[in-house]
Amino acid sequence: MSNKDIAIIGDGGWGTTIALLLHSKGYNITLWGAFNNYIKILSSKRENLKFLPGVKLPEGINFTADIEDLKNKDLYVVAVPSQYLRGVLKKFRALSIPRVVSLTKGIEVGSLKRPSEIISELLGNVSIASLSGPSISNETARGIPTTVTIASTDSEFARECQDVFLTERFRAYTSNDLVGVELGGALKNIIAIAAGISDGLGFGTNTKAAILTRGLVEITRLGMAMGASKETFSGLSGLGDLATTCMSRDSRNRWLGEEIGKGKTLKDVLGNTEMVVEGVMTTKSACELSKKHDVEMPITEKIYEVLYREKNPRDAVRELMTRSPKGE
Amino acid sequence: MSNKDIAIIGDGGWGTTIALLLHSKGYNITLWGAFNNYIKILSSKRENLKFLPGVKLPEGINFTADIEDLKNKDLYVVAVPSQYLRGVLKKFRALSIPRVVSLTKGIEVGSLKRPSEIISELLGNVSIASLSGPSISNETARGIPTTVTIASTDSEFARECQDVFLTERFRAYTSNDLVGVELGGALKNIIAIAAGISDGLGFGTNTKAAILTRGLVEITRLGMAMGASKETFSGLSGLGDLATTCMSRDSRNRWLGEEIGKGKTLKDVLGNTEMVVEGVMTTKSACELSKKHDVEMPITEKIYEVLYREKNPRDAVRELMTRSPKGE
Repeated sequence: MSNKDIAIIGDGGWGTTIALLLHSKGYNITLWGAFNNYIKILSSKRENLKFLPGVKLPEGINFTADIEDLKNKDLYVVAVPSQYLRGVLKKFRALSIPRVVSLTKGIEVGSLKRPSEIISELLGNVSIASLSGPSISNETARGIPTTVTIASTDSEFARECQDVFLTERFRAYTSNDLVGVELGGALKNIIAIAAGISDGLGFGTNTKAAILTRGLVEITRLGMAMGASKETFSGLSGLGDLATTCMSRDSRNRWLGEEIGKGKTLKDVLGNTEMVVEGVMTTKSACELSKKHDVEMPITEKIYEVLYREKNPRDAVRELMTRSPKGE
Repeated sequence: MSNKDIAIIGDGGWGTTIALLLHSKGYNITLWGAFNNYIKILSSKRENLKFLPGVKLPEGINFTADIEDLKNKDLYVVAVPSQYLRGVLKKFRALSIPRVVSLTKGIEVGSLKRPSEIISELLGNVSIASLSGPSISNETARGIPTTVTIASTDSEFARECQDVFLTERFRAYTSNDLVGVELGGALKNIIAIAAGISDGLGFGTNTKAAILTRGLVEITRLGMAMGASKETFSGLSGLGDLATTCMSRDSRNRWLGEEIGKGKTLKDVLGNTEMVVEGVMTTKSACELSKKHDVEMPITEKIYEVLYREKNPRDAVRELMTRSPKGE
């Protein structure tokens, strides 16, 4: 494919970072955002003040809030929060989009659908790949070495996308486990909230590493019950993304957990940010999925109780630590 | 077993922490160290100033440098750096030790033996378990929730040890994969050095998460070639220990890597610490093992070149990032 012209749908931190990356490779980039006012600011200030502050956006990147401007692109990169994905894609139905790379990480509440399922449902017969991995946007935007996985059931399309995204500082691996890559990217946010709660309670890296390890076990278990491959969860889009999300000071999901560990309620925390914290809704979806597939997810269950039932976070950790002793 | 009287062999940070933990459970603890002068300080100051500063050691814990004082204990906990293990155990041969829990993490240079193999070689027919997991000593000593795995080929002995160590803040799982638990505990230190180098170069959590993920893949590969189970490497003594070692400001192996990433040589760094940094020697052993078992270990190989051949760390990372693109 030629891929001369690439559309980015979504003006968050990660969409903007990918716009920068692809622009640096010589592609013609048009980035679309839903709010005309904010798009005008992006275009004039050449900085995404809310979601990627401090990073200069070159003149060559086009910004628009007009769907017509996204006609006839070679590739569409979708970078919209999961709970808004359906609403946004409805606007793009008329465009006959041929190829999509999804950056969206989450599971739709209610339908329990993965991003690629929503894309297929709304856009029909398109090639879809999911790009995921340990990639905090402001690090990638500053040229910090980053690795990701690009998954598609169409392995030729995955390889084409690999060519599009690959740079010396952005290493892309391919995978054919679309289900596993999407579930890993979504479910890791629950565990990152748990890791943040541990930070907020003043616990150390021992506790966080235990949460990360046992958390990976339970999200892998759910993934496998849903048809994903175990290996994917041990890879960049599973363990890798989980690790960076649990470690980074800039991860919103970890941050939200930390605030809750310090004693705030979910409402307090969400009221103070314009950011979408994917893990909050994903926790809800994952609890439903764990029941549906009859998979034990003790950490996810406790996080659900902490977020939605105002369970005391310290009690939640103690209960996890004092389950009956057993084999690993 | 009664386990009324427990001997701790080794006066480092982790041996001291385990002494504290077991003392809090009501066991009679005698901690042995090789240097009489330092043992006298431990005993009088009631603080391990070099290796566990700031933590009060109760009067009930006995300190000794006399091997005779370790006669007829019910359980022996060995907490000696791997390269000194053989030398220390030679002194204890006459004691007819029945049961050993090893806390030692490393692979002996030259013989390429695991701690339990050295213990068997020197002490003959003893029950052996290895205790390992994400457990930075000064966190565990301060009561931070910690989880570990206790592995033995004798599953009844593993369960007995679980009873001995378990507290509300120290959760112990059992395993029968002694090989996997020992190799995970040793090999993770190489990857932690790599993670530290990334920190020292000013890279972010994206890079560190990638190193952790790809590092786990290669140490798992070697472990499996040596008879370990893959699952063990995804557990607390593999991934868990790796994660805490890569994250913690207090991990010596990560710290050594960070200093090297900032431009120091191995000699500079080791000259400035009394601590044993296990990963340095383990890197050497692992390179030999990877050749012996014909297993590809690209990160380990680069760390070897950085540590022992003065390869530039930035070049090492760039070479890892620009290997030919491929499937994950």
